[in-house]
Amino acid sequence: MSRRDKFHDAVRHALEKEGWTITHDPLPLKIGTLKLEVDLGAEKLIGAEKDNQKIAVEVKSFLRTSKITDFYQAFGQFFPYKVALGQLEPDRILYLAVPDSIYEALFGEVLITSLLEQYPMKLIVYIADAEEIQIWID
Amino acid sequence: MSRRDKFHDAVRHALEKEGWTITHDPLPLKIGTLKLEVDLGAEKLIGAEKDNQKIAVEVKSFLRTSKITDFYQAFGQFFPYKVALGQLEPDRILYLAVPDSIYEALFGEVLITSLLEQYPMKLIVYIADAEEIQIWID
Repeated sequence: MSRRDKFHDAVRHALEKEGWTITHDPLPLKIGTLKLEVDLGAEKLIGAEKDNQKIAVEVKSFLRTSKITDFYQAFGQFFPYKVALGQLEPDRILYLAVPDSIYEALFGEVLITSLLEQYPMKLIVYIADAEEIQIWID
Repeated sequence: MSRRDKFHDAVRHALEKEGWTITHDPLPLKIGTLKLEVDLGAEKLIGAEKDNQKIAVEVKSFLRTSKITDFYQAFGQFFPYKVALGQLEPDRILYLAVPDSIYEALFGEVLITSLLEQYPMKLIVYIADAEEIQIWID
């Protein structure tokens, strides 16, 4: 299994541990002539009304030497996916899944905090080895 | 000369043809512990008051097979650069330079037009072979 796939499966299993049902792996989005894929689609029954909460999760491993280059790619995928979901499935919420080590090392940078104030991204911070979600950041 | 460098030089020469002086190649931006580089910095005297107009230009060649992947990278660089410039040099305007063929093929996609309505990017559309700027899109 590639290292990338290992991170993908870690997030998949972490979501399942928290009671999510993986409904798409990957989640296809067709818009115009473009065919996009978000890594995972998942659903969960939430609250007394048993509403079905739906999420899409793009899993990032940040395996490149240049973490900021990986960040550019992640940021650059998130917003097109968000706009596509807004048109195709407006009730599905998009998350970017990032490893805890990267969250600690990179997301405290003044550039990234300023950027996320202006262009918010919902995050799932995950612990790959433990296959657990550390925190949901809405 | 690599194909990537050829596109870089084409935009540099195109700007010079329009009277811009290239002041940085590349333009370094230090923010927190991060060191970013925008491809070009340029200046031009504009108007009767002889104000110095300053720009930063990130040149994209879109040489990958997957043009949308190249777009993610370009989009994902533009906004961090914009936020960094806003803090370091708020009077310098950021542009993304894209080849005319890519502009015609990709930027008419409904996803991209919807995205740019919500997250505007200033563009320079360039003709690589002619080393000319086709259009400035503000």
